[in-house]
Amino acid sequence: MARWCIGIDLGGTFIKFGLLDENRQPGGTLQLPTPRGGAEGIIAQMVEGARALMAQTALRREDLVAVGIGAPGPADLKRGVILAMPNIPGVADVPLARRVGEAIGAPACLENDANAAAYGEFCCGCGVGSRSLVLLTLGTGVGSGVIVEGQVLHGSHDVGGEFGHMIVQPDGDSCPCGQRGCLERYCSAAALGRRARQAIEAGRSSALVEVLRRKGDLDAKDVEVARKAGDALAAEVWEAGAHYLAVACVNICRILDPDLIVLAGGLAGAGEDLRTPVREHFGRLHWSLTAPRTRIELSALGEQAGVIGAAAVAWRASRQS
Amino acid sequence: MARWCIGIDLGGTFIKFGLLDENRQPGGTLQLPTPRGGAEGIIAQMVEGARALMAQTALRREDLVAVGIGAPGPADLKRGVILAMPNIPGVADVPLARRVGEAIGAPACLENDANAAAYGEFCCGCGVGSRSLVLLTLGTGVGSGVIVEGQVLHGSHDVGGEFGHMIVQPDGDSCPCGQRGCLERYCSAAALGRRARQAIEAGRSSALVEVLRRKGDLDAKDVEVARKAGDALAAEVWEAGAHYLAVACVNICRILDPDLIVLAGGLAGAGEDLRTPVREHFGRLHWSLTAPRTRIELSALGEQAGVIGAAAVAWRASRQS
Repeated sequence: MARWCIGIDLGGTFIKFGLLDENRQPGGTLQLPTPRGGAEGIIAQMVEGARALMAQTALRREDLVAVGIGAPGPADLKRGVILAMPNIPGVADVPLARRVGEAIGAPACLENDANAAAYGEFCCGCGVGSRSLVLLTLGTGVGSGVIVEGQVLHGSHDVGGEFGHMIVQPDGDSCPCGQRGCLERYCSAAALGRRARQAIEAGRSSALVEVLRRKGDLDAKDVEVARKAGDALAAEVWEAGAHYLAVACVNICRILDPDLIVLAGGLAGAGEDLRTPVREHFGRLHWSLTAPRTRIELSALGEQAGVIGAAAVAWRASRQS
Repeated sequence: MARWCIGIDLGGTFIKFGLLDENRQPGGTLQLPTPRGGAEGIIAQMVEGARALMAQTALRREDLVAVGIGAPGPADLKRGVILAMPNIPGVADVPLARRVGEAIGAPACLENDANAAAYGEFCCGCGVGSRSLVLLTLGTGVGSGVIVEGQVLHGSHDVGGEFGHMIVQPDGDSCPCGQRGCLERYCSAAALGRRARQAIEAGRSSALVEVLRRKGDLDAKDVEVARKAGDALAAEVWEAGAHYLAVACVNICRILDPDLIVLAGGLAGAGEDLRTPVREHFGRLHWSLTAPRTRIELSALGEQAGVIGAAAVAWRASRQS
């Protein structure tokens, strides 16, 4: 009988659940809406989802080894405590790992969601066989996770591995984090839509003018579609985003020099339409002292990277304890 | 009888030699000029210096455990081979560790010079008791070394830990490395002198005009002295350098979140006159999601960080082999 870990990925819209066996093979998955209103609802939904997944896959309690939870926002990872929840004001100091683990009846551990996704790609995705990687999730913001010599890099105060808030434009755009010129202001999926809208509001003509009028807003997908149809503004916005992503890739090489950089999240859904221009800018921006050797890859696990990674983190913790 | 490792620090002007015992206590030191003309002269000088230091301190061969060499430029660290030497064209693929080790009669290992200095501060300087640090050497360029969980970070291709070539100003000043907008173009000791000179050549008045006329060039020390005497241009150049250093410190926190950042090299000789403005800018630029917890410190070992670190690297290697 196989033994399993459950991975739970807490997102803004959905909580995802998945299984991973001891040979790193994924099993069944499940997804439930993220309840509004606070920590208690989220804890209850996590417990219910895990139990439902176990029932659905006929997983017996004695074959469940551990639970791993990936969650956004600042946390005390050693203690498994969420310090705050983005978008849910008033939530503070939630002992998520202990509460969920006790209810399910298995040891549980907590990891940052982007770190979990990075560890998922490292163990089961495009990072298999590598020693180090950096994953960038290009969505509303830019999340990132760093693996160095097979270990998730947390930093001394659990706030490391945040390439989305690396300053790439001193005195640049204000970021909700309180800094200016953060990477995520220039190349998240949201940033691309925002930049196209700003250009249109400043008077630029584009096929996107009509889209903006119809939808009231623009997202990266609109930019991608218009670019493919030959729209000049869309192409310009897309190239600018790829340029900043390439700056990030150069800096990742200078600082961490990993085996690979993984592009993930909504914007990476564009596939080669994203990777090709990023690689071109990267080749042009990279120093000439040594040839570029860090590979730039697209996520292999896609939307499942988070749950698979959370389960892989649980396996790792269970082997260390 | 104490057992010792010898540390050798290869600089552009001097080769420095030092001893470190198994309790991390430094012993005698020695310094010889760096010979011109190529790798053979450098190897011979390293061997001669090590022998002279042993003779001077009555260190017997049987009490010498290992030799560590810190050197600039690209290298294959595992094989102990220097791939190229900055400022010495034509030098390629020099098996420095093997050649020096065989001649002295002890195992030898190679480390990047800034990494060695970082490891020196970590083991014997202001990083004692920490788990992670980043050291920035502010000289002609900006070198850096990264310690994560007690290990020197090399990256997958031995080119990691180069914060001096992090791009902080896309499309900014050209750097000899082939990139544009590298950190070292904005806050090395050389950059401060260069920026003051450029401002004067563009017509700015300053007490430094007379210094430039007399010396033909300006360095960071000139800027520091003029700033203390109340010169407005010097103050402006100094603040701009501190601002970019603070951007680097913020990015170091976002990416690596270390216990401390160590300011070293010529510019750090200004002491609190450098650290205080860097800390002020850092506090202003840092995100508001969590309070700054990474300390910004001045080098404790100063010019000896490199040799002490190289010897500490040798101790570490000898314990692992």
